[in-house]
Amino acid sequence: MVIITPGQKAAISSQAAAYLENIRHPPLPGLLSPFIASPSRIPNLRLTIGQKLAALEEEHIKRYNLSITETTIADIPVMVIEPHVIAPSNESKILINIFGGGFVMGTPRERAALIMAGECGIRVYSIKYSLSPEVRYPIARDECFAVYRKLVEIHDPANIYAMGSSSGATLMITTLLLARKDKLPMPARLFLCTPAVDLTGAGDSMVSNANRDIMPVALLSAMVRQNYAPADPEFDFKDPLFSPLFASYDATWPPTVITSGTRDISLSSAVRFYWKLRGAGAKAELLVGEGMWHGFNWEVDIPESIALRGAVREFLFSDN
Amino acid sequence: MVIITPGQKAAISSQAAAYLENIRHPPLPGLLSPFIASPSRIPNLRLTIGQKLAALEEEHIKRYNLSITETTIADIPVMVIEPHVIAPSNESKILINIFGGGFVMGTPRERAALIMAGECGIRVYSIKYSLSPEVRYPIARDECFAVYRKLVEIHDPANIYAMGSSSGATLMITTLLLARKDKLPMPARLFLCTPAVDLTGAGDSMVSNANRDIMPVALLSAMVRQNYAPADPEFDFKDPLFSPLFASYDATWPPTVITSGTRDISLSSAVRFYWKLRGAGAKAELLVGEGMWHGFNWEVDIPESIALRGAVREFLFSDN
Repeated sequence: MVIITPGQKAAISSQAAAYLENIRHPPLPGLLSPFIASPSRIPNLRLTIGQKLAALEEEHIKRYNLSITETTIADIPVMVIEPHVIAPSNESKILINIFGGGFVMGTPRERAALIMAGECGIRVYSIKYSLSPEVRYPIARDECFAVYRKLVEIHDPANIYAMGSSSGATLMITTLLLARKDKLPMPARLFLCTPAVDLTGAGDSMVSNANRDIMPVALLSAMVRQNYAPADPEFDFKDPLFSPLFASYDATWPPTVITSGTRDISLSSAVRFYWKLRGAGAKAELLVGEGMWHGFNWEVDIPESIALRGAVREFLFSDN
Repeated sequence: MVIITPGQKAAISSQAAAYLENIRHPPLPGLLSPFIASPSRIPNLRLTIGQKLAALEEEHIKRYNLSITETTIADIPVMVIEPHVIAPSNESKILINIFGGGFVMGTPRERAALIMAGECGIRVYSIKYSLSPEVRYPIARDECFAVYRKLVEIHDPANIYAMGSSSGATLMITTLLLARKDKLPMPARLFLCTPAVDLTGAGDSMVSNANRDIMPVALLSAMVRQNYAPADPEFDFKDPLFSPLFASYDATWPPTVITSGTRDISLSSAVRFYWKLRGAGAKAELLVGEGMWHGFNWEVDIPESIALRGAVREFLFSDN
């Protein structure tokens, strides 16, 4: 269970406090996580969490009146999410989404994709990459890159927006690193929601928020290490195409908005990537929610989430 | 002693890690703070901490070749800190500083004032307001306001920059709230370093960083409650001129840069004030240092501090 004191409650909305009060962690996450996230138990984990989220996804599809079609791009399945009303200024734009879920679960029709389609009035191309442990690094990244390569061929890059949440942000950043290497164009803007840029596990918030966030660090770590990371014990977790904090960046990197919260295990990852981009001369903005957790902005009706999404839309679309 | 794990160390500079490893907290801060910060012991606290800092202040005065004169403005003592070289674009500008120190200690020649004068090449007017417990709220704020009122009479407000650190930020914000009430002009830009905008003690970081920061929350709290806050037990800590988070803001508020760190007890205060200004239509930027503590940016040679100060200068002076 996540602890929340009266002084912490006083600083957030009642809706956010109620959400946190309902969080139940697995007992003894530090000890049990390697078991819960072992490869043989991932299908069960997907089912339990997937079912809960599926109901919310259905709600959002109705709420925003979205139509969903499935296609393949570069032989990779892609879900195209189209809002009933497309904003006139977004008519020729697309938003590429890479979903999150610790590399082991998740779906291209995750709330992030649905909410962005509905609230921004934009077509979302959400890539259905392969999950772990069925495949391991770098398969998912290479699938995402294959789709990106094709999309920049058929769309004006000035009309391409890109996003990813958590592990989806990791995959999106490394996709763009591969694109840059191949001299492909960058998207117009990039949105990284609670990104995981350093899979070594370093960072202040990985300690301070380890058991305060809705996702215990031990569980996420076990997911990545046991299922996604190469089985080779010599594999370097600082490989810049695995942990993109360790890549180098320059001013050609697209303007990037990064979101997190003070309770988020990924706060340090967000902060460190912000300074990395800024130091490289790229334009970056960091948005931090008070008392907010990993991926809070996809809770559609929480006031802090609404404010954050508004700020993200402003960054992405206010000048065009 | 402040705890720092290998994973936290890996994400910050070796200089920052060494700094944190040298921090010693009072034993049992929760229990002993009311004693340590009792009014009769404040002179002793000032002496102990003041002596340590005085040596650094001397160093900085030499390093930046600063000349210091003392004057009075509106009958309040003000220290004018003048760098050897004034940047040509800053010739007619002044930076008003209100020093920090939990309302009970500190000096107008604090490092913040000296470093800003030296690094920005700008004249700093640092207000020597009265400390608590000798006087209590609202004396210090009213002294700062008297100086501000006079300074906007004799200087073009477009050339006035304003800053404050920690409790100094509280006093600066409330000074500007009084100025707005009297229809006085706002400064061109505002810099709030690790501001304390909510003296009720609410906020996520007031719990999560309570004993991780260089200043334990219990000690700061005891300083404020026992020395600065009105003795009246009915006094409302949400008084907007005492805890300026509870004031209302609008788009006429000056563009404001706010700094903090993930280990800072004031992180939530900084975050909440950022959203408050943004929601009011004012321009705000939040800068957060990975693993950084309360006021880290005044450690002159720590790489994270250098980067942060560069970003602050960019916000304050890049367009004029």
